[in-house]
Amino acid sequence: MERPTETIRFDIAATDGQARTGTLSMPRGDIRTPAFMPVGTAATVKAMRPESVASTGADILLGNTYHLMLRPSAELIDRLGGLHRFMNWDKPILTDSGGFQVMSLAGLRKLDETGVRFKSHIDGAEFHLTPERSMEIQRLLGSDIVMCFDECTPWPADETVAAQSMRLSMRWAQRSRDAFGDRPGYALFGIQQGSIYPELREESSAALTEIGFDGYAVGGLAVGEGQELMFSTLDFCTAMLPADRPRYLMGVGKPDDLVGGVKRGVDMFDCVLPTRSGRTAQAFTRAGVVNMRNARHREDPRPLDAECGCPACRNYSRAYLHHLIKADEILGMMLLTWHNLQYYQDLMSGMRAAIAANAFAAFEKDFHDRRAQGDIDPL
Amino acid sequence: MERPTETIRFDIAATDGQARTGTLSMPRGDIRTPAFMPVGTAATVKAMRPESVASTGADILLGNTYHLMLRPSAELIDRLGGLHRFMNWDKPILTDSGGFQVMSLAGLRKLDETGVRFKSHIDGAEFHLTPERSMEIQRLLGSDIVMCFDECTPWPADETVAAQSMRLSMRWAQRSRDAFGDRPGYALFGIQQGSIYPELREESSAALTEIGFDGYAVGGLAVGEGQELMFSTLDFCTAMLPADRPRYLMGVGKPDDLVGGVKRGVDMFDCVLPTRSGRTAQAFTRAGVVNMRNARHREDPRPLDAECGCPACRNYSRAYLHHLIKADEILGMMLLTWHNLQYYQDLMSGMRAAIAANAFAAFEKDFHDRRAQGDIDPL
Repeated sequence: MERPTETIRFDIAATDGQARTGTLSMPRGDIRTPAFMPVGTAATVKAMRPESVASTGADILLGNTYHLMLRPSAELIDRLGGLHRFMNWDKPILTDSGGFQVMSLAGLRKLDETGVRFKSHIDGAEFHLTPERSMEIQRLLGSDIVMCFDECTPWPADETVAAQSMRLSMRWAQRSRDAFGDRPGYALFGIQQGSIYPELREESSAALTEIGFDGYAVGGLAVGEGQELMFSTLDFCTAMLPADRPRYLMGVGKPDDLVGGVKRGVDMFDCVLPTRSGRTAQAFTRAGVVNMRNARHREDPRPLDAECGCPACRNYSRAYLHHLIKADEILGMMLLTWHNLQYYQDLMSGMRAAIAANAFAAFEKDFHDRRAQGDIDPL
Repeated sequence: MERPTETIRFDIAATDGQARTGTLSMPRGDIRTPAFMPVGTAATVKAMRPESVASTGADILLGNTYHLMLRPSAELIDRLGGLHRFMNWDKPILTDSGGFQVMSLAGLRKLDETGVRFKSHIDGAEFHLTPERSMEIQRLLGSDIVMCFDECTPWPADETVAAQSMRLSMRWAQRSRDAFGDRPGYALFGIQQGSIYPELREESSAALTEIGFDGYAVGGLAVGEGQELMFSTLDFCTAMLPADRPRYLMGVGKPDDLVGGVKRGVDMFDCVLPTRSGRTAQAFTRAGVVNMRNARHREDPRPLDAECGCPACRNYSRAYLHHLIKADEILGMMLLTWHNLQYYQDLMSGMRAAIAANAFAAFEKDFHDRRAQGDIDPL
């Protein structure tokens, strides 16, 4: 089926090896790629006002279907005007399908061909999440980029298990596509599965491309396989996806994962790491990962990262941030979260500029060299 | 001793009955009175960035000597450039003497003529807090308005006990004055004690006025006596203090306490109520006190307070705030704290304008009438 796509465009402005930079243009705004999407699980990027998230350079947020369907419910958000208005974020939002979180409810969920039955971790209420219901929920939320309902193949999985899981996801991808329908201005992304097996990734890519999506995600990575296997899988799996559509590596990752992902042709990422770390005293800096709880910061008048323009770095000493953490002050979580999100956006911005200048290799070397300076705390 | 006061001025612009409005001018900025001082206990107004606190209209913050001397210590803050720089607040700061918090360490502290010995609730370290040490700590912090070290007479206290306690505080007031010395641009406030007894309040006022201070606080109220007794005590005790110096009612209070305090001649207030309430889902509105956890807000698209200009009221529905509270999201505490501080500052601003217009009685009536509308949750 030919779908209207006039309001969504993906323009690649430059490439450098496999790395690409460009713009995914949507009715609610442009997404500069490679892009990092902060995670706003429960209709809030934790400890941040949305204006502050936008100020870091974020063009798009991720919302979690699983959490929102349970509380406050997609129907309530719809009645209140949709997720953007509910949470006061007018730029694009991508929602996951709910599948990943539901699958991780080991022992509390039951999967069959129709979908997944599970009980709410909040009040025990029973739910049946299917491709069709996931599409409905994401439509009610008003999500700009909707993700197919799939099974994230667990790690490790032998090739037989991985194949069965992937093929279920491909059948669900077709059902997601059918249920999504024709919604100009809204995008539906397919999700490639197949674990670490090239033949399965190829089969999955072919199935998705045959169905046809606005973008393609790499699923089933960052699930415990480690960076080496993730990179060696990306080495072949991203190139299997249509080059003219955005590629999204789900749930990734650490700063060096992002650099390695972009190098291998990924355009979009999301991860809770910068926000979660910010609530547990861990800060990302150009010279390494710092634990602000560490006593060495107790009287340090220097900023967390002298090159960072965020409020935590512009206005405060490491000593003050350390004090806030030791005193369990909410402002400590607020400032470190803000800094980490700024660091992630600065990293993406740096990669976009490096690709545009055909200098990604130099960027990558500098990135690793500076972290090797080792302003690092044992965590 | 004649002290230089050229950099500190208190100008009363208008009076209306006992209520006064004016400006306390200090080197770090003007304090519009009547003023409410948000409490920044541990060098942070909890869940707020200082820029946000300033945006509500706060001209001055309160810091707690007891908390700061224990962690991170006055000496460390001094080495890092003082409390203003440490916490990124360049307007005036008032610090309490530490006495109130120390006295409340029942069983863990020992009081004698010299001062109070106590153990840190954080690590058990032993401290001896005296008038002289309190003055030293407040100087190290860089406090603009220093409070005398005193004993906050407990409630209830019979007249004999209240007299003994007040006279100890007066001897400590003299020692505080002597230890404070000559510090142009910095203010020292005395604290009137005497519980609910007019003769004792009079004796205390006379003793303090004889010593001479830049401002005078009413101590020993809001300690459990109830609003009626607090008001009946204020009815006589504020007028005993020099009319040309600011009067500060310590640790007060609820919105109607502030209105009643201003009516009785008080110029300055501080209280943890707006910030603490903001962290426990309680919000102050022009129509009453609302508990955002209450299920009646679950699908309410209206703002918390339609007349409020804070981000919580401008950008979000009650339904969203309720959702944040139910989901234990930090943003819920951030937004409600901001709103409550904005409400308090708007209340002070409204009282200042009413006094200037000689219309305080009408303001007071309107204040109570609107709250009688009863947009109130059982707490």
